[in-house]
Amino acid sequence: MSTLRFDATTRDWVVFAPERAQRPHEMKKEKRVERQFTVSSCPFCPGNEHLTPEELFAFRDGSKANNSNWHVRVVPNKFAALSPEALPEREEEGPGLYHLGGYGRHEVLIESPDHFTFLGDQPIDQIEFILRALQVRFHELMKEKHVQTVVIFKNHGTGAGTSLRHPHWQLIAIPVVPRSLRQRQDVAIHYFDLMGRCLYCDLVAQELQDGRRVLAENDHFAAILPYASHVPYEIWLMPKAHQPSFAQVCGAHFRPLAELLKKVLQKLFSLLGEPDFNLTITTVPKGDEDKPYFLWHAQILPRLTTPAGFELGTGMSINSMLPEEAARLLREVSL
Amino acid sequence: MSTLRFDATTRDWVVFAPERAQRPHEMKKEKRVERQFTVSSCPFCPGNEHLTPEELFAFRDGSKANNSNWHVRVVPNKFAALSPEALPEREEEGPGLYHLGGYGRHEVLIESPDHFTFLGDQPIDQIEFILRALQVRFHELMKEKHVQTVVIFKNHGTGAGTSLRHPHWQLIAIPVVPRSLRQRQDVAIHYFDLMGRCLYCDLVAQELQDGRRVLAENDHFAAILPYASHVPYEIWLMPKAHQPSFAQVCGAHFRPLAELLKKVLQKLFSLLGEPDFNLTITTVPKGDEDKPYFLWHAQILPRLTTPAGFELGTGMSINSMLPEEAARLLREVSL
Repeated sequence: MSTLRFDATTRDWVVFAPERAQRPHEMKKEKRVERQFTVSSCPFCPGNEHLTPEELFAFRDGSKANNSNWHVRVVPNKFAALSPEALPEREEEGPGLYHLGGYGRHEVLIESPDHFTFLGDQPIDQIEFILRALQVRFHELMKEKHVQTVVIFKNHGTGAGTSLRHPHWQLIAIPVVPRSLRQRQDVAIHYFDLMGRCLYCDLVAQELQDGRRVLAENDHFAAILPYASHVPYEIWLMPKAHQPSFAQVCGAHFRPLAELLKKVLQKLFSLLGEPDFNLTITTVPKGDEDKPYFLWHAQILPRLTTPAGFELGTGMSINSMLPEEAARLLREVSL
Repeated sequence: MSTLRFDATTRDWVVFAPERAQRPHEMKKEKRVERQFTVSSCPFCPGNEHLTPEELFAFRDGSKANNSNWHVRVVPNKFAALSPEALPEREEEGPGLYHLGGYGRHEVLIESPDHFTFLGDQPIDQIEFILRALQVRFHELMKEKHVQTVVIFKNHGTGAGTSLRHPHWQLIAIPVVPRSLRQRQDVAIHYFDLMGRCLYCDLVAQELQDGRRVLAENDHFAAILPYASHVPYEIWLMPKAHQPSFAQVCGAHFRPLAELLKKVLQKLFSLLGEPDFNLTITTVPKGDEDKPYFLWHAQILPRLTTPAGFELGTGMSINSMLPEEAARLLREVSL
């Protein structure tokens, strides 16, 4: 069973999932490769639905659950980092050494029946299905009594930590609020107390006016390369209206969001030759949906460089690329 | 010229070093390989001293500066992320968008004349030379008026971000205090205000008493796998007496520190087959050397797993290995 432990020196919670452990010889670097299933053995391919746990949600054309005729499909992660059976209770193991039962849920959204496709190449309709399904599951997971935060992300490529080629997303519902999210909220609260406005909304407005770091926009969303980007070609997708939670994206806005996401990913892949990347959606913890000081946002983080001792030791980054230069190169890509 | 930018949403400073930039096609993942100099062209090998900037410090046997007869040698980094010529002045580029001149120093400590050696295989005397030289340069860099923090680290292997095979360390003197260090100090201050003791000293004492997460110790230092380790086989080396700054290690203690470091690295390499790793030394910023609430420590972070969307999005970690299990396996390694 998993457990969470509290780092008394940083106040971070760390998830320990020993079921996912490898023996020391398996951890050697030579052994780390993507599990390249063929289509016939891939648990995410149509026809292999029996290889996954029972599905939790799907967009499909009329067929019954767990049949093959689906557009997107959500299933529990077979190698879940957290479990709904664990008791979310804190215990002090020794002075200051707190742990918490590994309660939570860990789901996989299979983003297409096609084993070999890439998110940016999918039709707008399909990207809209994906985003809507993520919101459906986000809603459901947030309803669970002990869930405080739902983390949504996608890993593309082995350099971004994925182990399965078939394109998919993950949702992890956790019983705590990450310290880094609390810290960002604190910063936004201080700004709100001083200025009476949402820090993130102000940043979006300012970037749109300036223009140099804007990659693309439509009526409802903007794609911006942040002023203090931590990595080259880091891109944020943000709503133009104040919206703390991803749950608040209304039905009519999924299409423009899908269009913007497709455009951004296509430009990124065209310029950089299919880089590995992570895509994360950051949204407020439970209960903060109506606060005036935070904005949900999707972050695209290309994995072009390797964080080293300076980054790990300080939490700071050394970035070789100014965001206005990266934005200019991306804007110039014609699709 | 480099510059630092302030992330208004997290309060992190990010170093922008555009001279280190690559064109988009060079950033493609296929291109990222270690620069494998042959010994004859390696700027860190004896006989090639003219390929580096003038040396800043060396332990050598009687010979003159920049000659070949040295044990360890410190030179300015030819591709420095920061420069002593930059003005350390803050400017507001737009509302809330602060930048700061890329002032600082960036040095390389060449840890051995031997191109192919590994730190754990070096004689104790040589490891002692390395640690003493790091402290000499740390002292010097901290004296600079605008330096707030000196970051010391070593990257071993391409997976840990190194680009040069010849073993070396880096020292980066920066004009700011990293936000993550401030946060750790805040946590330690709260603990001190509540308990009247140093959080880190209490943790060391408690771990030594418990024993399960202790890998090795001697009279002056302990090697401990932290209770909430963020990655498998994470190891901390800590002084047993209260000592906030690495500058405070006294001459007589370098030998036991070198012995412990060698032992820990040899066990790690024996168990895991020469893993890539980062080694960082965290120490207090300028002016906090005499505070009762922080302990300098060296962290060894093996790069066995790839942080993915969950880690990047939350700052939390999923660790498949409990530290007491990793400590047991490491203790069982006979050298």
